[in-house]
Amino acid sequence: MLVPDLADGSPGAEHVVLRSVRDGEPELTAATPGGRTEDATWWHVDLLLVNRTTRYRFFISGTDGSYHWLNAEGLHDRDLSDAGDFLVRAEDYPPAWVPDQIAYQIFPDRFAPSAAAAERETPGWAVRQEWSGPVRDNGKHVEDHWFAGDLDGIIERLDHIVELGATVLYLTPVFEGRSNHRYDAVSFDRVDPALGGDEALERLINAAHERGIRVLGDLTTNHTGSGHEWFLTAQADATSPEAGFYRFRHHPDDYVAWWDIPSLPKLDHANAELRARLYEGEGSIVARWLRAGLDGWRINVANMTGRMGGDDLANDVARRIRATMQEVNPEAWLLAEHGHDASADLVGDGWDGTMDYQGFTRPVWVWLNAEGTTPEAGAPTPVSHGLDFLGLPINIPVLPGTSAAGTMRDVHARMSWAAQSASTLHLDSHDTPRFRTVVGGGTDGWVDAEGRGRTRHLLGLALQMTMPGVPSIFAGDELGLTGTNGEHARTPMPWDAGVWDTPTWDAYRAWVALRRDHVALRRGGLRWVDIAADSLTYLREHPSERILVHVVRPSPGRSAAAAAPVTLEASLLGVQGARALVGEDLAVTGADVVLPTTVGAHVYQLDTAGWEWND
Amino acid sequence: MLVPDLADGSPGAEHVVLRSVRDGEPELTAATPGGRTEDATWWHVDLLLVNRTTRYRFFISGTDGSYHWLNAEGLHDRDLSDAGDFLVRAEDYPPAWVPDQIAYQIFPDRFAPSAAAAERETPGWAVRQEWSGPVRDNGKHVEDHWFAGDLDGIIERLDHIVELGATVLYLTPVFEGRSNHRYDAVSFDRVDPALGGDEALERLINAAHERGIRVLGDLTTNHTGSGHEWFLTAQADATSPEAGFYRFRHHPDDYVAWWDIPSLPKLDHANAELRARLYEGEGSIVARWLRAGLDGWRINVANMTGRMGGDDLANDVARRIRATMQEVNPEAWLLAEHGHDASADLVGDGWDGTMDYQGFTRPVWVWLNAEGTTPEAGAPTPVSHGLDFLGLPINIPVLPGTSAAGTMRDVHARMSWAAQSASTLHLDSHDTPRFRTVVGGGTDGWVDAEGRGRTRHLLGLALQMTMPGVPSIFAGDELGLTGTNGEHARTPMPWDAGVWDTPTWDAYRAWVALRRDHVALRRGGLRWVDIAADSLTYLREHPSERILVHVVRPSPGRSAAAAAPVTLEASLLGVQGARALVGEDLAVTGADVVLPTTVGAHVYQLDTAGWEWND
Repeated sequence: MLVPDLADGSPGAEHVVLRSVRDGEPELTAATPGGRTEDATWWHVDLLLVNRTTRYRFFISGTDGSYHWLNAEGLHDRDLSDAGDFLVRAEDYPPAWVPDQIAYQIFPDRFAPSAAAAERETPGWAVRQEWSGPVRDNGKHVEDHWFAGDLDGIIERLDHIVELGATVLYLTPVFEGRSNHRYDAVSFDRVDPALGGDEALERLINAAHERGIRVLGDLTTNHTGSGHEWFLTAQADATSPEAGFYRFRHHPDDYVAWWDIPSLPKLDHANAELRARLYEGEGSIVARWLRAGLDGWRINVANMTGRMGGDDLANDVARRIRATMQEVNPEAWLLAEHGHDASADLVGDGWDGTMDYQGFTRPVWVWLNAEGTTPEAGAPTPVSHGLDFLGLPINIPVLPGTSAAGTMRDVHARMSWAAQSASTLHLDSHDTPRFRTVVGGGTDGWVDAEGRGRTRHLLGLALQMTMPGVPSIFAGDELGLTGTNGEHARTPMPWDAGVWDTPTWDAYRAWVALRRDHVALRRGGLRWVDIAADSLTYLREHPSERILVHVVRPSPGRSAAAAAPVTLEASLLGVQGARALVGEDLAVTGADVVLPTTVGAHVYQLDTAGWEWND
Repeated sequence: MLVPDLADGSPGAEHVVLRSVRDGEPELTAATPGGRTEDATWWHVDLLLVNRTTRYRFFISGTDGSYHWLNAEGLHDRDLSDAGDFLVRAEDYPPAWVPDQIAYQIFPDRFAPSAAAAERETPGWAVRQEWSGPVRDNGKHVEDHWFAGDLDGIIERLDHIVELGATVLYLTPVFEGRSNHRYDAVSFDRVDPALGGDEALERLINAAHERGIRVLGDLTTNHTGSGHEWFLTAQADATSPEAGFYRFRHHPDDYVAWWDIPSLPKLDHANAELRARLYEGEGSIVARWLRAGLDGWRINVANMTGRMGGDDLANDVARRIRATMQEVNPEAWLLAEHGHDASADLVGDGWDGTMDYQGFTRPVWVWLNAEGTTPEAGAPTPVSHGLDFLGLPINIPVLPGTSAAGTMRDVHARMSWAAQSASTLHLDSHDTPRFRTVVGGGTDGWVDAEGRGRTRHLLGLALQMTMPGVPSIFAGDELGLTGTNGEHARTPMPWDAGVWDTPTWDAYRAWVALRRDHVALRRGGLRWVDIAADSLTYLREHPSERILVHVVRPSPGRSAAAAAPVTLEASLLGVQGARALVGEDLAVTGADVVLPTTVGAHVYQLDTAGWEWND
């Protein structure tokens, strides 16, 4: 830990003490002062791991009499609960390859139809649509509108994904269902013939692997569709094994269902036969499709899986799925859908990570939301997208960087670094409005080719590509697509490049390449350097590279005069020289580093000469 | 929830929304505005409990565009993790009598010797001391010095406890050991003959019960003494059942011990026979002594019990002990020793509560600590007790009320209200310096009869007697005893009332009586009203009574000029009339309530007319 000197030049800390909890009891270990920078001292201490999970924080007593604790939330001038402590697990094991990836999310019905798609018979549940036709955002047919994208269509468009630089395909469900989203599976044993069937998935996996792209499947463990073969058997025969997979209040028609939606009966994980079929052992669904080539699973509604009234088997389910995956393919990634605080479920030997809506998507939205602001291009009237804030009875608010970063630290303080690094960073997904709409790009569900939301969109992209976690791009974001909710956001991909917002497409490729080329952006630690209303500044530090990221938003209330620039102590930051990778140069004036005030992302590679590391 | 109007008189909130987590998924429920006070609105919403534990918080969108979440930590202007949410369990079951108690902690060797004690043979491990002799604070004989207090001695002094008003005796261990503290039990089957044996305990329990006083035992489940009969058998015979009670790295001399202290071998709760002997079923130690009349257990080192490297059985042990207690006496109290954040262990069906060092003792110490301040009486030089802060390499710091209350809220946010209410509030204990020494009463281990620490001591007492939890008085605190550490604090009780600090003794009886007479102090909710550097102000609210507590400390840096008074909105506070129960009257000037600035505790009973409650 680097502790700055006081203003008078004397060392800042009198004592630095590591507090870690061992076998349930806090243990205090004094750190010792080591090397010095020009005006700061390095302190060193070893952390002993005895238990599966170790929480720790640091006590810092200042030579000026100050009293502080440093935990994962930041610096505090008082005693603390352990809830915000740094957290390290001896048993985390996300695959090593995960933090290096860029994920690309495909909703198969809307990505690309192969030549075969036009000839394919329309499924019984479906109402066939034109590829260029409008996408409904609500109403009766929202699940029935079938655009006939298929898996061979994805194969034909793999070049697009390679050009973008993505390395993992995350496919929403491909098992046969009775809707365009297929989260209402009728079987986990076969790929929907409407997508090309099992053979098409095999072809897609092989084609992706040939290009070095991994493929993630999507499994619903919380419920099945009411048309699922298990549920039909369960309803037909109360004495069948399958009848135990569900919880009938009164057989056959009164049963526990997800959110009481009758078409989605909830699975009961207390049932051993269900566990065996779904995820325990080599014969399970989880194992079978990994053997077929999937590189991991995204688990739908993981937060509710196994949770029902007095029963809470969620961590147990996660542990068993993980155990089977370890047997079949120890390198497979296990990603949990969790729309909110997932910390209670990220216990090391279960889910590797989560979709980080709470710690990334929401704070980025409130910081870059354009509602009520004047757009940078297009009409001079304030933006009014009218989007509610994920269910709250208000429009998405515009909040300062202190709020956004505060949320990020609060949420991430509850996760191990391994779990955070194996979680996905989304600007949006098939379950939310398009980010481009949030930032002022329009609400028509089409490409924002005029670039009304482009500036803010690309600031969000800069955060997504420079933060810890796995950036996950929802197909079409890279073209500037808009959409007002999850349904509306599922626009069929516009493959005519003439309609794309080309600066957005160019920026995506550049940022993906930047992340690929800089290990610190993929694997470096995160240290907040400055948090202001209109700028967020942080270090990504890796033993071989240090990168400083400074993102400046258009201030909702900024006057013509430039805001005060962010000024940092060069010595404390370890800046002796800095090369701008993106954006404007920084200025070094004496002992200070002055960062640009221009709206945009400014990224610097810092000299590491003389920087004390892990010694 | 009462939401104040804006300055212009318009209602403060546009929306109030309850966010609770159900089966793992957040659910939003709109609150509806109800009645009004003069300048605030009540909002109402029902909380549905579906799971064993429910976390919840409130969203408040202001008519001024403000964005807030209210959780157990307070108000936040940003999104949050769930870590600080209010928490309610469907399965908490501390006995209903617990929150009404005042506990009195007795270290049997030091409380009172009966006539029989003088005749008693000195145990082999012991070095007999004069009752009036000095108490060692460290060194070789610290555990051997035997003052020969006994259980019949306690019976003879029960009138003192009745006069004080305490209703629960918490006895540190009475099982035979080889030290004056007896945390190194040689048996859990017999009361130490040096204390009078089993019959004396029976006499004491009966005598206490006759006076309406309950008795809490102290059981060490983490370890035994190396002289324990189980351990001797285990060492003598590697094939004995008892050999499985401990974890031998190499039999018989290399074994896991508490903090690697060879005289305290650690118990292995994975062993079924150990569980049966110690706490499972009617034949267990836990059951046997409850049947003998104990009203509950305080579990020593509960935080480490069952925790050893990769194993964590702590919650399992707690649950099994609780289950046995439920069988034998469902009204028994199960209190866990936990020197720090106990939240992970207060899961509802295990420990009822904890010794709240982290959420009460520590914050009270830093707020009232006299180190470096000028004492109110006695020598004009600043106080220098030189006490370290519970193991940190600094003296106890003096911190502002914002720090103290911040810690209280932080720690208590992790507990259910039931667990907090069934936890004990200590100003000190047999394991800490005396509070009187912390607040400047001297370091000689004797009564501070000059009253050098009295003012601050009684402020701490006021907090202890007006906060949620069970006040626990370490015998001698009520007389003004001092002591520099746990050993030194174990002064033999000075039964000559002529040496007591009489104003302290009077104050204890008055505060205990106040708590007894006011249900809101025992059972009312807690709502922070104002938190300042030098004052803490809170409401204790019960359907039948509302009490306002305002405690003002001597400011470490206060100039001759009085500090600015704390001013509150009368309407928001619901103050139409207020009767001072302790301290000075408050002033109502127009719409404002102005609280006294005089150092001391000021307690008011508020009129409840027109106050909207639970409707």
